[in-house]
Amino acid sequence: MNKENLATTIIAIEKAALEEWNKGNPTGYLSIYAEDFTYFDPAQRINGFEKIKELYESIRGRIQVEKYEMIDPVVQISGETAVLSYMLESYPGGKLSRWNCTEVYQQQPDKQWKIIHNHWSLAKN
Amino acid sequence: MNKENLATTIIAIEKAALEEWNKGNPTGYLSIYAEDFTYFDPAQRINGFEKIKELYESIRGRIQVEKYEMIDPVVQISGETAVLSYMLESYPGGKLSRWNCTEVYQQQPDKQWKIIHNHWSLAKN
Repeated sequence: MNKENLATTIIAIEKAALEEWNKGNPTGYLSIYAEDFTYFDPAQRINGFEKIKELYESIRGRIQVEKYEMIDPVVQISGETAVLSYMLESYPGGKLSRWNCTEVYQQQPDKQWKIIHNHWSLAKN
Repeated sequence: MNKENLATTIIAIEKAALEEWNKGNPTGYLSIYAEDFTYFDPAQRINGFEKIKELYESIRGRIQVEKYEMIDPVVQISGETAVLSYMLESYPGGKLSRWNCTEVYQQQPDKQWKIIHNHWSLAKN
């Protein structure tokens, strides 16, 4: 797969997981997090798949986002790594929240692309 | 270099640049940012080395951090990529600020490790 096609694929993988998330379903993201997954959000740091799974299962069904926009996604590809960064405008309960997102994807031995690191933060700009 | 030694090396590269930064000198970081560097901080998104250089040169000499602590750095290594994530306690002007930091390092053709993506955010935890 050339880099342009791979970038499109990575963005599509992310959007599919995000759209599930927006319906309260964390399974999309959990199915593409690697075993050694690491994570930042404004409230916490999480290391390891089992711990993020525990967090996400605790909020299953509670998130409802009616509308979102992924803004200006950039994919930096090198070897088996693809770094996706984008801004997100999300409307949980109809109210805008603005985020910065980094996802580090790596191709696994079985060729599936999984996320090894995710950093969510609130954008002030 | 085995993974443990490489992790130690990556952390040492980061600390050296951070310590220069804390004295108001952005040259340390600029010398390890790749050409296709991408960046988030709470106020902005920046894509490309020339733009981050412009920002950093505009604040050269203005930052003075007397004390810092890099907390629990984790380095995830795969092939030519090393993802460093850590929490930072920084004391600019003696006042504590708490950050989450992601740095995606990639080994360049000349074997130097450079940062292709950096995400700084304020930690609330």
